[in-house]
Amino acid sequence: MLLNCVVYQEGRKLADIDKREISDYLSRPGTFVWVALKDPTAEELAEMQQEFGLHQLAVEDARNGHQRPKIEEYGDSLFVVINTVEVVGDELKVGEVDIFVGRNYILTVRLRTEKGFQDVRARCEREPELLRRGSGYVLYALMDAIVDRYFPVLDAIETELENIEEQLFSGSHPRANIERLYYVKQKLTTLKHVTAPLLEYAGKLFGGRVPNVCSGLGEYFRDIYDHLIRINQSIDSARDTIATAIQVNLAMITIGENEVTKRLAGYAALVAVPTMIAGIYGMNFKHMPELNWYLGYPFAVGLMFGIDGYLWYRFKKSGWL
Amino acid sequence: MLLNCVVYQEGRKLADIDKREISDYLSRPGTFVWVALKDPTAEELAEMQQEFGLHQLAVEDARNGHQRPKIEEYGDSLFVVINTVEVVGDELKVGEVDIFVGRNYILTVRLRTEKGFQDVRARCEREPELLRRGSGYVLYALMDAIVDRYFPVLDAIETELENIEEQLFSGSHPRANIERLYYVKQKLTTLKHVTAPLLEYAGKLFGGRVPNVCSGLGEYFRDIYDHLIRINQSIDSARDTIATAIQVNLAMITIGENEVTKRLAGYAALVAVPTMIAGIYGMNFKHMPELNWYLGYPFAVGLMFGIDGYLWYRFKKSGWL
Amino acid sequence: MLLNCVVYQEGRKLADIDKREISDYLSRPGTFVWVALKDPTAEELAEMQQEFGLHQLAVEDARNGHQRPKIEEYGDSLFVVINTVEVVGDELKVGEVDIFVGRNYILTVRLRTEKGFQDVRARCEREPELLRRGSGYVLYALMDAIVDRYFPVLDAIETELENIEEQLFSGSHPRANIERLYYVKQKLTTLKHVTAPLLEYAGKLFGGRVPNVCSGLGEYFRDIYDHLIRINQSIDSARDTIATAIQVNLAMITIGENEVTKRLAGYAALVAVPTMIAGIYGMNFKHMPELNWYLGYPFAVGLMFGIDGYLWYRFKKSGWL
Amino acid sequence: MLLNCVVYQEGRKLADIDKREISDYLSRPGTFVWVALKDPTAEELAEMQQEFGLHQLAVEDARNGHQRPKIEEYGDSLFVVINTVEVVGDELKVGEVDIFVGRNYILTVRLRTEKGFQDVRARCEREPELLRRGSGYVLYALMDAIVDRYFPVLDAIETELENIEEQLFSGSHPRANIERLYYVKQKLTTLKHVTAPLLEYAGKLFGGRVPNVCSGLGEYFRDIYDHLIRINQSIDSARDTIATAIQVNLAMITIGENEVTKRLAGYAALVAVPTMIAGIYGMNFKHMPELNWYLGYPFAVGLMFGIDGYLWYRFKKSGWL
Amino acid sequence: MLLNCVVYQEGRKLADIDKREISDYLSRPGTFVWVALKDPTAEELAEMQQEFGLHQLAVEDARNGHQRPKIEEYGDSLFVVINTVEVVGDELKVGEVDIFVGRNYILTVRLRTEKGFQDVRARCEREPELLRRGSGYVLYALMDAIVDRYFPVLDAIETELENIEEQLFSGSHPRANIERLYYVKQKLTTLKHVTAPLLEYAGKLFGGRVPNVCSGLGEYFRDIYDHLIRINQSIDSARDTIATAIQVNLAMITIGENEVTKRLAGYAALVAVPTMIAGIYGMNFKHMPELNWYLGYPFAVGLMFGIDGYLWYRFKKSGWL
Repeated sequence: MLLNCVVYQEGRKLADIDKREISDYLSRPGTFVWVALKDPTAEELAEMQQEFGLHQLAVEDARNGHQRPKIEEYGDSLFVVINTVEVVGDELKVGEVDIFVGRNYILTVRLRTEKGFQDVRARCEREPELLRRGSGYVLYALMDAIVDRYFPVLDAIETELENIEEQLFSGSHPRANIERLYYVKQKLTTLKHVTAPLLEYAGKLFGGRVPNVCSGLGEYFRDIYDHLIRINQSIDSARDTIATAIQVNLAMITIGENEVTKRLAGYAALVAVPTMIAGIYGMNFKHMPELNWYLGYPFAVGLMFGIDGYLWYRFKKSGWL
Repeated sequence: MLLNCVVYQEGRKLADIDKREISDYLSRPGTFVWVALKDPTAEELAEMQQEFGLHQLAVEDARNGHQRPKIEEYGDSLFVVINTVEVVGDELKVGEVDIFVGRNYILTVRLRTEKGFQDVRARCEREPELLRRGSGYVLYALMDAIVDRYFPVLDAIETELENIEEQLFSGSHPRANIERLYYVKQKLTTLKHVTAPLLEYAGKLFGGRVPNVCSGLGEYFRDIYDHLIRINQSIDSARDTIATAIQVNLAMITIGENEVTKRLAGYAALVAVPTMIAGIYGMNFKHMPELNWYLGYPFAVGLMFGIDGYLWYRFKKSGWL
Repeated sequence: MLLNCVVYQEGRKLADIDKREISDYLSRPGTFVWVALKDPTAEELAEMQQEFGLHQLAVEDARNGHQRPKIEEYGDSLFVVINTVEVVGDELKVGEVDIFVGRNYILTVRLRTEKGFQDVRARCEREPELLRRGSGYVLYALMDAIVDRYFPVLDAIETELENIEEQLFSGSHPRANIERLYYVKQKLTTLKHVTAPLLEYAGKLFGGRVPNVCSGLGEYFRDIYDHLIRINQSIDSARDTIATAIQVNLAMITIGENEVTKRLAGYAALVAVPTMIAGIYGMNFKHMPELNWYLGYPFAVGLMFGIDGYLWYRFKKSGWL
Repeated sequence: MLLNCVVYQEGRKLADIDKREISDYLSRPGTFVWVALKDPTAEELAEMQQEFGLHQLAVEDARNGHQRPKIEEYGDSLFVVINTVEVVGDELKVGEVDIFVGRNYILTVRLRTEKGFQDVRARCEREPELLRRGSGYVLYALMDAIVDRYFPVLDAIETELENIEEQLFSGSHPRANIERLYYVKQKLTTLKHVTAPLLEYAGKLFGGRVPNVCSGLGEYFRDIYDHLIRINQSIDSARDTIATAIQVNLAMITIGENEVTKRLAGYAALVAVPTMIAGIYGMNFKHMPELNWYLGYPFAVGLMFGIDGYLWYRFKKSGWL
Repeated sequence: MLLNCVVYQEGRKLADIDKREISDYLSRPGTFVWVALKDPTAEELAEMQQEFGLHQLAVEDARNGHQRPKIEEYGDSLFVVINTVEVVGDELKVGEVDIFVGRNYILTVRLRTEKGFQDVRARCEREPELLRRGSGYVLYALMDAIVDRYFPVLDAIETELENIEEQLFSGSHPRANIERLYYVKQKLTTLKHVTAPLLEYAGKLFGGRVPNVCSGLGEYFRDIYDHLIRINQSIDSARDTIATAIQVNLAMITIGENEVTKRLAGYAALVAVPTMIAGIYGMNFKHMPELNWYLGYPFAVGLMFGIDGYLWYRFKKSGWL
């Protein structure tokens, strides 16, 4: 679906144009065309390939989708694949934005994403002195917006992790804790797959030799790179925390088991000792003086309570009960 | 066994030729010969060595088989070893394709593989404008086909892993889970050994200095490289998941043990307490008033049920039963 | 909040000036301005941006705060972000110092930190022959002070770790040990995030091509780098110790469990055997000679004590009790 | 002990010579001397140092032995240390071959090895067209032979590992399994120490700048490098398998423990319930109607069997027995 | 404390001189001064700084001590920090040697070390042809001596590790084993911190661009580097062994627990079954034919022994007792 097709000149919007007019504007100096597609059909992509002269392999990637993030140069133009991540219920939904950028055009293809980039377009149009820098600046603005949207996702995961952490040392719900830790780790892996390759490629958009469309914007792309480093570092740190938390959880389970065993043993003793005494006075010997005592029964029961009381005191003191 | 021996000129099939005619065609400009062998005898390889002037060490590798994936330059020609992976029953079968590529010839040697490359040849012949690029393009088409065949294998493994995952938190079948995780890990290791070295070598077929036969095809080989990166990343991620899953499984086992211990203890208490009471009223003291009560027996049994009922309630409440 | 605004000439303090005079002094040769802000408002930052001509992206970073440590070049000037770490109660409080350095100015922005840098200013003013080197030397002095403040934090963590270590092999308080290990690890992670990126950037301030403001001060910045390496190595080592300590703690718990099980079993045997003997002599057979013995009862009790005594001796010898 | 001292000219053996004649032949063009020593005395090494003009540090290394694998350049000559690995009983015996190679000589020193290199000498003499390439080719032939001898050692270890693997999931012999896994890991470590440094050095014998004596033999040394990569990869993979296997073994032990606990508990219940019932009918109440029933005893025993039968059925169904 | 202050000329000792004469000799060609200090006061260091013109930062490092190993260039001179390691009782004592080397002087500062370097001086004076090479050769001789002293320390640790290993599979003393493994690991970490940074720096003293004082001695410094690589490899290997050993120890503990549980259960059964039988014949039913049998009692006891005998046989066979 074609969302927008706009011509910009000297940083200002010139006109909404029809997609068949694109090639007319591509040769004008100081002008660039910004086209936005959403989940396009193969035909729409083929039309765009025609209009902009896109490389066959890049168009195939956009048609198939499910690419890993990458930034590829085809001659003077760039093909950029970035994943979007949206929190949908308790899951992460990974979408994809494919961007074709040339000297005087930028074509964005949104795949499987909920949220669009109207805000990026609006911000760009509000800052004509920056938009004047051309399609490279639009690429920056888009990448910046997508990367900024990773932060709340990461925050949500970190909050979840902190909640689990609080439960960890209470020793309760070990089964639920470990299951939650497992799924949080899966989410972090998803986020890592989205950000780590992008980090690697973003590092090539500033510093040494950079693609033509990005030249003069080094400080901007370095800013994106810096954000990605922060995200990646946070992910690595959270993954490390999870690994430790799983270990800790296992230890807490074993400690809990240990405590239960001790407690059980304590109570078992409290029952076993009277049973033994009762057994002794249940023996059928002819000559057992206690049996004939008038207070034999209270004596036996007293003995039971006495020993149990003493054991109870000892167990309490040593923390078994 | 010789499968095919075909001459191509300007991207179109010229003729099926006899293997002894090969050297006649090698000197013709704009022409290349594409020969396919399957599990060849030492003699067949020696003939080919003669016809194409292949290097002794490369031919020895092809004769011995069981090489790890690699791409070696011998002067102007390349010797490429790629492994195929096929799912046979519950196992992975690793085969090998050895490819000798020169400016005007390509010789493929299939070892221990079920599926051939008729589809690659057909695809190449359908696209003469690409096939015109010569033996380098055929190399690309073959590598692309082999690499694409890794994806369904990986998918099968990932599906298996997801099935195990579902069982993981149910706590049932821990023994089977861990055995399956172990074998899934072994399969991933197999796949990793097939793809990781290839990734490394494929990275040298585009970008900086590339072998002559690959020149001008950089974007195509980068596409293969990109696929291999995706596969490797998925493998690493699956291996990491398995490591965590084994830990989780161990934790679930310990948790299960813990729960069983508690449950047993609960039931043991329910039996031990009546046994103790019975023991007490089994004592042979002369003076035990209860023994003479008319309702002594129901009283004792009632006591047993009363205490057990209370314990049952307590155990249920604390989740032990 | 503006803390200081001072002009230095040839290594000596010239005057405290008003912030609106800054630009007047920036053009004088052999002179530099050192301005210190604390938790500034957006307006204060905007004024400074105006006076010093700071880059928009750097100012945004300073306004947002919560940056990871970095050293970025904007043309001839540097933007430096360093984190401070202060021990507040049982927690680490991470603050931030953002430094803008140009040929003839240095602007420091303290965010969320308790302790200021009056001592650095005093030290600089005491050594005019070093301060004469200009804003680069002030940058060194500030970085040196911040990095030196990491050492006591690290020492506190290492002391805590040693305390836990002593408890580890006593086998007592396993739950507390593991909780403390977990939180010490979190602190180390915090410290690592503060120092590791800084290490990386500090390595670029000496040796090969260095930013202009740092030139001629290579040996000083190498000294900071060397301190950071030491800190990082200590952190890594402490983290490794924690990982092992968690494993060891788990092993000690299991060993403890094992010992408790043995002990319980020993005591259970001491109760079970008399109970069995009592049961036997509680049987109601008509013909049980022992029952009629005059010393039958003492015999039975003696048997109980005898067997228990023997078991006691055996259990003691094998270390079960 | 001097094993051989032979002069070769144009790829053919010229003569066995006395060690004092060596220096006479060293100046002849197209000629090289190949000397083989076995566990030489310090004197023998000193003589050779004299004849060939070897560097003091290299000779000291050869005298001391127990070097790690390395390839060092001393001016135009190479000093190569390679370890041999032989399976002796159930252990790996690590030997050492020190090789001094110059333009027109090669001196091999075998230390603590069983098997010699007569086969290498024989193979070289059978292929004069290759031996004509001089001392560099002999170095290749020796290294190739030593590296090829690693493969059967690795195969033996992998077979042992597969045998353990089969036992792993049967759950039997956990103690023996873990002990065997530990020692297999030690063997892999030994093999790794022998091959990993060699891999690193071998990578410098082809490609970019190579030592003089190796020039023109790049494809041969690359072949050795390729073998070493395969060995190293297999070792890493086996080590990884062992790590997982140890984890799995631990899990199997815990699972086994769990099952034993359940089974014990089941049997305990089968004994405890009749004991309780017997206790109840052992009470001495005056008024217990069942005691007077004619079929009271069979009723009680029937009750015991009935409950036990029911429990048995339940336990069997839930897999506890 | 000043230990020595000697002038050397052309490889031979010229004279012991007073420290105030040092600067007189520094300008003489072919001459160098070798000064040795031990735990010097700040004043002594200041004097030396004066005499040799040492850099402030290096002198501060030497005064503070507790540096990590490093080799820093200050102009034409080197500042080298190396740690010594001495086994004192059951602990490792880390000392420090700081070396200032210039074209014609070498100043060594020993901090917190027991053993001196008289042997190095003696060895140097015995080999004038090598000592003639100047202060760089003395630096080599000192570094070589210090590094050689690491080997016996490492050997002691490895022997300790082997002793633990022998105990590991006997399953006895798990608590002591794990404690010893923990402390051996700590020692290895200490040794690693001493050797790993040195390795890194030593690699820069030969090969490419080397500091002036080291030029022409590449083969000597490579020898030190080679020793350090061997030490580091051994440390890494020992650490890996410890990690596995801790895992193995944990597994052995769990296995031991398992065996104890089985054994206990076996004995419990041997007591529980007679108790149950006794309970049955302790019931008070009027009509229990066995009670009236003349051989009822022996029958019951026989039954007890019979069942216990059978159980004993079964338990023995299945390895539970």
